[in-house]
This record gives sequence, structure tokens and C-alpha cells, in this order.
Amino acid sequence: MREFDLLKIVEEFFGDENVEVPAGMHDAAYVRIGDKLMVLSCDTVSEKSDFPPFMLPEEMGHMAVAVTLSDLAACGAKPLYFLSSISLKRADKELFSQLLRGIKRIASTYGVKVVGGDIDFSEFLTISGFAVGEAERVVTRKGAKPGDNVYITNPPGRAEVCLEMLRRGAKREELPYAITLYTPEPRIEEGMRIARFCSAMTDISDSLAISSHLIARSSGVRIVLDNIPLEHLEGYTENPLEVALYGGGDFELLFTAEKSDYGIRIGRVEHGEGVFLEMGSEFEEVEFRGYSHF
Amino acid sequence: MREFDLLKIVEEFFGDENVEVPAGMHDAAYVRIGDKLMVLSCDTVSEKSDFPPFMLPEEMGHMAVAVTLSDLAACGAKPLYFLSSISLKRADKELFSQLLRGIKRIASTYGVKVVGGDIDFSEFLTISGFAVGEAERVVTRKGAKPGDNVYITNPPGRAEVCLEMLRRGAKREELPYAITLYTPEPRIEEGMRIARFCSAMTDISDSLAISSHLIARSSGVRIVLDNIPLEHLEGYTENPLEVALYGGGDFELLFTAEKSDYGIRIGRVEHGEGVFLEMGSEFEEVEFRGYSHF
Repeated sequence: MREFDLLKIVEEFFGDENVEVPAGMHDAAYVRIGDKLMVLSCDTVSEKSDFPPFMLPEEMGHMAVAVTLSDLAACGAKPLYFLSSISLKRADKELFSQLLRGIKRIASTYGVKVVGGDIDFSEFLTISGFAVGEAERVVTRKGAKPGDNVYITNPPGRAEVCLEMLRRGAKREELPYAITLYTPEPRIEEGMRIARFCSAMTDISDSLAISSHLIARSSGVRIVLDNIPLEHLEGYTENPLEVALYGGGDFELLFTAEKSDYGIRIGRVEHGEGVFLEMGSEFEEVEFRGYSHF
Repeated sequence: MREFDLLKIVEEFFGDENVEVPAGMHDAAYVRIGDKLMVLSCDTVSEKSDFPPFMLPEEMGHMAVAVTLSDLAACGAKPLYFLSSISLKRADKELFSQLLRGIKRIASTYGVKVVGGDIDFSEFLTISGFAVGEAERVVTRKGAKPGDNVYITNPPGRAEVCLEMLRRGAKREELPYAITLYTPEPRIEEGMRIARFCSAMTDISDSLAISSHLIARSSGVRIVLDNIPLEHLEGYTENPLEVALYGGGDFELLFTAEKSDYGIRIGRVEHGEGVFLEMGSEFEEVEFRGYSHF
């Protein structure tokens, strides 16, 4: 995960900007505009590293918005505006219209206004999304306390198990969670509700393992995952645990709270550091790895 | 300029979003956040189409910020926050640090806080910038009136004449306007002052010709360019007029006003449509062309 080494450099350069939550500290930045607490986020998807086989152009547009809004969801923010820089291989009007149709549909779903953009040309299709949202309070990866429980909005590994099946030659119509893979939904409503009571939150787009580590590190605690749901992956992969822990591409929210009526309880927060998997009386260290852009 | 055909599609999809100034209508979008009038903009630069030969990594970072802030300058907005999605070829820490150093320096110059970003990987270096600024009032390309004059903040064609010289084999140290080419400055202060009295404004990053056409079209007027400065290009190119009119890469502001103490008067606004060049008693139609990403 060399990306995270580079993020350390970002923090060295910009970690002390005088804003509520600066670069590199969370899924998105918090700033004050007038009397509003606003959240700013950007994210890039490209056909090189993010679009699975058989993905339709409308779904690419959808995904560009979904990944960017997911960062806002992890802040419990209500998304307001979306902009994008789209790099096309050529000025293909039909393709471009389909991308915009996908962007428009998901933006409408979440009440987001698409207010601007930039068009560029590149050797492969890339969409950089930028979203502005409004939050009620600052929620970050920092704040998990010993005694808290760890929750996730839905069982993890659904996108990854589909990718694995595609790599083995499966067709799109054979995938059990094609919707999660091709048209992931950011957990906007859930994020806004969870933000009211959680102690820490992040999305699991890179992997459950990485997100657990990020919460553990930022909060200075130890996370023990003792109840990762795997039933939904059985029959689709030889190693459900690997897929659930280290697979990327799901846009669920991982959060900590004393108690939650939302989501599935998958672990607990303790004094200490690191992330561990509890299996019976055995503890296994969870690695810091997951979906990588490399 | 196939890019502009695609922008029409953007307008079809998103031109009716209920905001002050939506997508495709100006250099940036205006939205209200609380009681503030905010400006949102995004722009992408890449080594494929935007970085001239001999450009240093710090200058690439600088340019990414400059082009994005230039859109805000064209709104007369004060820039507040900047985010970027950076696509690298590999996790080169030294290169990455230099990019960030360039971003940091120009951001500091204009009092902009760098609050976030995203790191991705691609076959060539690309930086998508997003900026948030605050404006006092809405200034767009629409509003030029017959009787107004046309002004530009500095003589045009300086970046293009350097590019032309580089194509002919010149070395960087031989360029007359290397600073304009390698470290362009967005006209932030100027834009804020001009916004108080101008009737229309835009930057000339694509070319003076294109920006003149955009103002003429949006405002429903005819623009006659009767006084384009060319002296600064003489001796460096065989066709100073071509370079001044159709060259891209300068980040000056083009604006219309009854009268201005800022900038250089280069033309006038009349009833009618189109953009014309007045040379003695001759009128020549100015084409809609300039720097293109193709």
C-alpha cells in the first residue's frame, strides 16, 4: 500500500492547515463556511484501475459519483454539490452522454446538484469527482474508545467476490452481487444517522482491514474483529475470510459506538494497538492491506 | 474544438440545476452556502497535454493550482480551499514531494488552504484540481453591453510564443516569457477588483479568440478587437497576430466594462454577433479556435 506512504508526505506538507480537519486525516476535509460546517472531498476512478469488466458507461458515471459521495457519507454529511473532471479517449458524444446519464441519475437519487466540470483527453477514461456536503458535527476515524463495539452497515466482500469470479471467467449475469460491484450506493442516509451517535467512522472502500487499521491508529486503540459475517460469500470463493477482510470496492461504513441499532456488530474496541481477528481462542494479526491502485 | 461540442451535452443534462450559475455556463459554478456566495471550480492538467518541455515537478504542482484558481479569478472570487486528485506513474516520493512543494507555495501566495486530495496511479502524471472560493457578486461571460470596451489584464500570447519557440528547438533559458509558461499566475487580486465594475469576464486560457467568442455569444453582442498588443511578440514569431489571438496557456482575464483603469483596452462591444478583428478599414472574422486538448 505505497499510497499510504505518499499520504504521509501529504500530511507533512498540509497537515497543519488551520481548518477543522485537514488533508490526509480523514475521508474528506471539514471546513467552516460562514456558520456552516462543510465537507469537501475528491476521488478519482479510471478504466485502468477501477472499472470492472463488462461495466457500462452509465455505471462508470454512477461509480464516479458513488465513490466521492461515499467519503461524505463517512462524515455523516449531506451531499449538496458535485463537479467532475472527465478525461476521455476521444470526443465520443454517445459515450459522454451515457457517462453523464449515470452521473445525473445517482446525483438525483441523493439530491446532489451537478454544477460543473472540466473535459480533458487522455489515453484512458478517467473521472475525478469533487463533492461538497454539509455536516452536523465532525466525525472522523479518531474517537473510538475501549469498550465501544465495531459495526459495519452491510456484510463486506461482496464487490471483491464478484471480481474474483470474473477473474475465474464468470459472466456478469452469474455474479451474486453485481449491483454492489457495478452500481455501488454510498451510504448517505445511514451515515447521517450514524454520525449522531458513533465515536468514529470511515468507509471500507480499500478494505475492511485497512479501514479497521485506520480507525485503530487514529484513535490509539486496539480493534478485535470477532464476528465478521461470511455466510454471504460461501459457495462463491474458497476463502471467504480473505475476501471479506482484504477485498476492496464495497462502500459500506465501518463505525464504532457503545451500542448501535444500525448495522452489524463485527468486533470490539480495546486498550492497546493494532487490529486482530479472534477465532475461538486464537488471535491473528490483521494485515494492513487491501485494494491497491497498483 | 470538439471539447465545446461536449460542453453542450453537459448543458443539456445539467444546465437547469437550480443554482446561481450552473455547469457549462461559466469558468466556475456559483452556489449559495448559508448566506455566502461560493464559487466551485475544477480543472485538470496532465503531462500528456499541458506540461511544456523542461517543466520541473514543482512547476507542475504550481500549474495545477494556477489553472484552477484562474477560473475563480474569472469570477472575481477569493479562493479559500484547494483539493487535488493526483495520478502518478509510480510511488516516487521525491517527485511527489516536489509536486506538493509547488502546490504549497502558490497556495500560500494566494492564501489558499490545501485541505485534501486523492492519490491514484496512471500511465502519465495528471493532477485534477478543485477549488472553492467566495465571491461578492455573480460575474459571468454574460453582461457585455454595446458601448462597453474590451480589456485584458496583460498582453496575450506570451505562453504560446514560448511554446512555438520550444517547438523550433529553443532552450528554456532563451524564452522571453518563461515565467508565464512555467509558473503562470492566476489574476486573483485583479479579478476581485475588476469584478466590482465589469459587465462580463472570463480568463483566456484557451485563447483570446475563444474567450471573446464566449463573451459575445453569452452576452448576445458583437465584439470588435481593434487594438491587440503585438509588440511584445515581435522578433519571437513570424505571426504575432496568430499567436496573440489563437494561442493558449495565458491566464489573463478578458473583461468588458464601460471604462476601466485596470488592464489594456483591446476592443469594443457593439450590437450584433460574432467576433471581428478591425485592421484599418478592414474587418476580418475571428475564428472560434485556440488551444485544444486534442
